[in-house]
Amino acid sequence: MTRPARVRLTDDERFDWLRLIRSENVGPRTFFALMRNFGAAGAALDALPDLARRGGASRPIRVAGVEEIEREFALALKIGVRFVALGEPEYPPPLRQIDSAPPVLALRGREEALQQPAVAIVGSRNASAAGLTFADRLARGLGQAGYVIVSGLARGIDQRAHVAALETGTIGVLAGGHARPYPPEAVALIPRIAEYGAIVSEMPIEWEPRGRDFPRRNRLVSGLSLGTAVIEAARGSGSLITAKFAAEQNREVFAAPGSPLDPRAEGTNDLLRDGAVLCARVEDVLAVVDPIRDRDPFSRFEQAAHETGGPAWSAPSFGDDAEAPPCAHPGDERDEASGRTLRVNADSSEGRRRIEALLSPAPVSIDDLARAAEVSVREIRTALIDLELAGRVEYCGGNRVALIAPAAES
Amino acid sequence: MTRPARVRLTDDERFDWLRLIRSENVGPRTFFALMRNFGAAGAALDALPDLARRGGASRPIRVAGVEEIEREFALALKIGVRFVALGEPEYPPPLRQIDSAPPVLALRGREEALQQPAVAIVGSRNASAAGLTFADRLARGLGQAGYVIVSGLARGIDQRAHVAALETGTIGVLAGGHARPYPPEAVALIPRIAEYGAIVSEMPIEWEPRGRDFPRRNRLVSGLSLGTAVIEAARGSGSLITAKFAAEQNREVFAAPGSPLDPRAEGTNDLLRDGAVLCARVEDVLAVVDPIRDRDPFSRFEQAAHETGGPAWSAPSFGDDAEAPPCAHPGDERDEASGRTLRVNADSSEGRRRIEALLSPAPVSIDDLARAAEVSVREIRTALIDLELAGRVEYCGGNRVALIAPAAES
Repeated sequence: MTRPARVRLTDDERFDWLRLIRSENVGPRTFFALMRNFGAAGAALDALPDLARRGGASRPIRVAGVEEIEREFALALKIGVRFVALGEPEYPPPLRQIDSAPPVLALRGREEALQQPAVAIVGSRNASAAGLTFADRLARGLGQAGYVIVSGLARGIDQRAHVAALETGTIGVLAGGHARPYPPEAVALIPRIAEYGAIVSEMPIEWEPRGRDFPRRNRLVSGLSLGTAVIEAARGSGSLITAKFAAEQNREVFAAPGSPLDPRAEGTNDLLRDGAVLCARVEDVLAVVDPIRDRDPFSRFEQAAHETGGPAWSAPSFGDDAEAPPCAHPGDERDEASGRTLRVNADSSEGRRRIEALLSPAPVSIDDLARAAEVSVREIRTALIDLELAGRVEYCGGNRVALIAPAAES
Repeated sequence: MTRPARVRLTDDERFDWLRLIRSENVGPRTFFALMRNFGAAGAALDALPDLARRGGASRPIRVAGVEEIEREFALALKIGVRFVALGEPEYPPPLRQIDSAPPVLALRGREEALQQPAVAIVGSRNASAAGLTFADRLARGLGQAGYVIVSGLARGIDQRAHVAALETGTIGVLAGGHARPYPPEAVALIPRIAEYGAIVSEMPIEWEPRGRDFPRRNRLVSGLSLGTAVIEAARGSGSLITAKFAAEQNREVFAAPGSPLDPRAEGTNDLLRDGAVLCARVEDVLAVVDPIRDRDPFSRFEQAAHETGGPAWSAPSFGDDAEAPPCAHPGDERDEASGRTLRVNADSSEGRRRIEALLSPAPVSIDDLARAAEVSVREIRTALIDLELAGRVEYCGGNRVALIAPAAES
């Protein structure tokens, strides 16, 4: 699966990329939108304060400082973490495809593990003995069949799956930074995982994970994998969020069935009701993933990069635009050809206000927003850069955006 | 659901029907084929010895004696059993539709129970506590929603479902005769079931059930019901046979999920893999059966009887022919119009031998057999009457027939 490098960042570029993604209100989508608009992370960093002010920020935006990023690099070196940029050959191929793929992934362990086909196994923290045994059996079986096991390092099903796959390879995804491993039981496990597998994080290395970081992390668990198997899950549990991300990312969802009387099976039985593939033995998963494991996930991607003739770094942004209908608006075609976005109405604060007025805390798709505002999708995206940088909108998955409620702004 | 009588047998006719179906090698299909050919059970009884001889029987066929049937009627009267013929209004509507519906059903209890919409609940004899509890919950819930619960009186899931539905109505289907209730634990339960529900059997009243009678019985459990829910079932268990019959009868199949580590869930998980509806709560079943409970199961049936203009008793045989493509062979059309089968080549022992030569112990569909023999489906069916009466062929479900291996003939 090793592929020719499309991008090889210089040390300075890597520094700027990390600085840009660590700046306030810069998420993966905004990151790549800025890259499209400014051509390089350094130029985007220079423009950030103005853009945020124009978007209606009530105070100056916090741009990550040089010292802060130097400290992150130094700490990374100390604990054996390196930074891989989207587009570089070490970046895990399936993750490049997802909506809001992290521009920079902090990696500890063996980067080869990120190039193998992978399956996620997730489930309850307070799993039953049967659930743990099945997680173990599934992880071993898939490991022996050549799959890396991805999970979230939580106690219960996650850790059991990691341990069962230690020797065949497993990937742990942190919700916080590498220097703040969580949960405590995972601390001893992490170096063992790193020996044959990898630990990854998109967060600042000293980031202490909070509640909202776990769902965000879960999109990486599913995004690193051809499919996600949920072993035991009560209704409303985090594993179901991972399954939801997997479905949104067009990955397979597997669910282990459980007794109708077992509350830990309610979530997985719901998944089965909703069309998940029943997973009661290793073969149930292999039957689905074996036929797709060697399918090149980037044929579409490469083609798009080739057709647009854009700069190397623009190729990774393809996933960002994947859901926009191609050439839905005549004006977009010119933009695609140049590889840059023309700021048609974006400089007009009136247009931005109109778009903002159409937004509410209820998520709306960018397509619907464009129709309502009677502007092109590309204009919407450009206006959203400013609004996101100003901390006024957030992306909700599925290419939808919502206004951040005022209470959440403080 | 009470419907106008299409058939009301006289006492003599009822006696002849019972005598015909109790005769050697006369199964439901042969019964109705004989009725089509001879117009009445009495005439068919007279013809049986000749037909069997022509079919190649090595010894005279055993025709049920008058005394034997008198004894069955007397014993039935004593234990409160009456005989309902297919086509009479008391006959359970959904059962009329199945392949090889019993011509005569021996009924104890309340015939109204057979007119209500029903769901079968079946499962392991050595069920887990969770399985039993779920069977109880499901039976109660469906009973409260107006469904009669059908099952096979076995210990474990079956009996638990019957008991839970005693007051809302339940139907027990015997594998043997009413005077030989089985299993022993069901003996005390049967009169309680009969109080609000019913016990039914197609077998001679003193028939001691043997192993092969249980799968045959299971087709009645599914056939009496809009759908069959399997609660716990190991691979190869009888409940899966009931589920298979339900699918063949175009009824719904529900399966309760279970832990991948529980052998009692292997069968139900297999059913889910094969497309059964997941059943982890009462609503899962209601969502499927509520929309069809009041759909008239006989609209198709009535129409066919009307179109063919056949005699009243021929209407019930519609189910028998349901799988034959309508008018697949030009010669059939005339036969349909007269309501009788013309014995085109059936008297030719050469034609019968050719058909027999094409048969083997491996089941083959009647359509394929007709194609191979280059005769009409109707000719095949006529030849099969003789061969079945001679004990040389058997029906295997799905409109398929197989040669009975010589060893089984003795």
